Amino acid sequence: MSILVVGSVAYDSVKTPNGNHQNALGGSAIYFAVAASYFVPVSIVGVVGDDFLPEDKAMLEAHYIDTGGLSRVHGDTFRWTGEYGEDFNEAHTIDTQLNVFAGFEPELASSERKSPFLFLANIDPDLQYRVLQQMEERPQLVAGDTMNFWIQAKAETLARAISEFDTLMINQGEVRQLAKENNLVKAARYVLSQGPQMVVIKRGEYGALSFTSNAIFAAPAYPLETIVDPTGAGDSFAGGFMGYLAASRDLTTAGFRRAMIVGSVMASFTVGSFGPDRLSCLSMGEINDRYREFRRLTYFDGSAEAELPSLTCKDRS
Amino acid sequence: MSILVVGSVAYDSVKTPNGNHQNALGGSAIYFAVAASYFVPVSIVGVVGDDFLPEDKAMLEAHYIDTGGLSRVHGDTFRWTGEYGEDFNEAHTIDTQLNVFAGFEPELASSERKSPFLFLANIDPDLQYRVLQQMEERPQLVAGDTMNFWIQAKAETLARAISEFDTLMINQGEVRQLAKENNLVKAARYVLSQGPQMVVIKRGEYGALSFTSNAIFAAPAYPLETIVDPTGAGDSFAGGFMGYLAASRDLTTAGFRRAMIVGSVMASFTVGSFGPDRLSCLSMGEINDRYREFRRLTYFDGSAEAELPSLTCKDRS
Repeated sequence: MSILVVGSVAYDSVKTPNGNHQNALGGSAIYFAVAASYFVPVSIVGVVGDDFLPEDKAMLEAHYIDTGGLSRVHGDTFRWTGEYGEDFNEAHTIDTQLNVFAGFEPELASSERKSPFLFLANIDPDLQYRVLQQMEERPQLVAGDTMNFWIQAKAETLARAISEFDTLMINQGEVRQLAKENNLVKAARYVLSQGPQMVVIKRGEYGALSFTSNAIFAAPAYPLETIVDPTGAGDSFAGGFMGYLAASRDLTTAGFRRAMIVGSVMASFTVGSFGPDRLSCLSMGEINDRYREFRRLTYFDGSAEAELPSLTCKDRS
Repeated sequence: MSILVVGSVAYDSVKTPNGNHQNALGGSAIYFAVAASYFVPVSIVGVVGDDFLPEDKAMLEAHYIDTGGLSRVHGDTFRWTGEYGEDFNEAHTIDTQLNVFAGFEPELASSERKSPFLFLANIDPDLQYRVLQQMEERPQLVAGDTMNFWIQAKAETLARAISEFDTLMINQGEVRQLAKENNLVKAARYVLSQGPQMVVIKRGEYGALSFTSNAIFAAPAYPLETIVDPTGAGDSFAGGFMGYLAASRDLTTAGFRRAMIVGSVMASFTVGSFGPDRLSCLSMGEINDRYREFRRLTYFDGSAEAELPSLTCKDRS
């Protein structure tokens, strides 16, 4: 099973308490594609400028990512400059230069129109909707992301796009804004009433929660001694999540739970460097090891059926 | 196994986005004792004023809590007035009237001096240390809490008290302040270098993390649709944590992990009402049910030994 991702490609300049880096390869489509590429073939649809570096294209191709949909347009690649404070949970945008991304109009190749897995990264919801309309077959799974800017500026077209998503992946602050509801359980229920069967709420260093109509799952973030740069963690999460689902073809409740952990695994590597340097040089052994570490991080009983041991009123006597 | 808790008894007036309540029974020792009382006998050492209500004493005794160490002094009981904003994670103190608590000098009865489990709730670290000196036998487990005020005002005596704790239970913001370190993994390692074998970092709606020298465990908070009042959640967590350990007598790594979940279970009930109303009227069935719900909330593989399924490089082809 292959995945199609439509999103941004950028060069990011980021300052964090642990350092700074100029013009690191970034953008939602890049982080998503590299993370998912460990599991299945990925095609990327996006736009880059004249300044897109050959070594960046080579990195993508080394991950078997189909870059045929990455159109090169005269001008500069999208550039984002941002800063993180001590808590690493919120990016402060210092400068945004849309450049060639301002005119982005995704046009899918015929093979891409039959992609069984589709991720609509955080782009204009009008574009998200137009990509959906280009699909010849309804994908098995459509997931999408959005952000505060679209929630404010394009509420109606965003609602139309979201109504077509199977899974909405969204930040904690943004789902509150979208649902006009501070309580996450209620905010998730609102999203589920709008079309998606699942909402994944990303909470940065606190991990992620998934909600369906009948279950909640909590994935912690992997506690790391050094966070270099959280940029791209959410898209890497989405890439691991969908990559695992596409590889395992397991769209059961159990499959989605494991996908939440694989997403957390991939995000935990992304934050270890500026840009996708760390994410792009993983071995399957490292991925499997960290997956097992998530089990050690969260499991508290050997058996999934065990009762709470020794907890009866008799213990009082 | 019985537990001795030394801490505050208070009447709290609290305002939250979901309402307000005047003079609810509160204080760290109360929440801890009621939560732990579901598992083992608890003795409470604290001080109350003339205004301490007979029905509050009756509630404690209905939970088989030994109130012999609850000395009644002429004056008013400690009163705290606070407010929570939309995020419920931080209490804003509006007013503190120490009243009889200002002269609190814990004096243990002879039976209390042999208690195998001791919880030193958030009180002056000088008092915590003096309680430890009164113990005739070193308890099997000493856990303690503290707060920003003591970290600033009594760093040296706090360090002396903490060096005697087996487990320090502390808020996320306060462990950062104590360790002068923003990263929680590094902050935890600092605490472990000061004496305790374990540090439990409480993160409000994000759950709790425990750190030992060789393992980290992440317990989520139970996602609730309505949080009435988070006051006492941390002390209820500590009560469930120690109550389970004392009842099970299981001080292995596995026992401590289950204790983290039992603590989370008890905290999830506390936040459902102002004061200890909800916490104080639980059945063991409700506690066991929620414990099982935590498993559903966090487990992603049937077997604790399973490999990550279907994740090999072969899936790319």
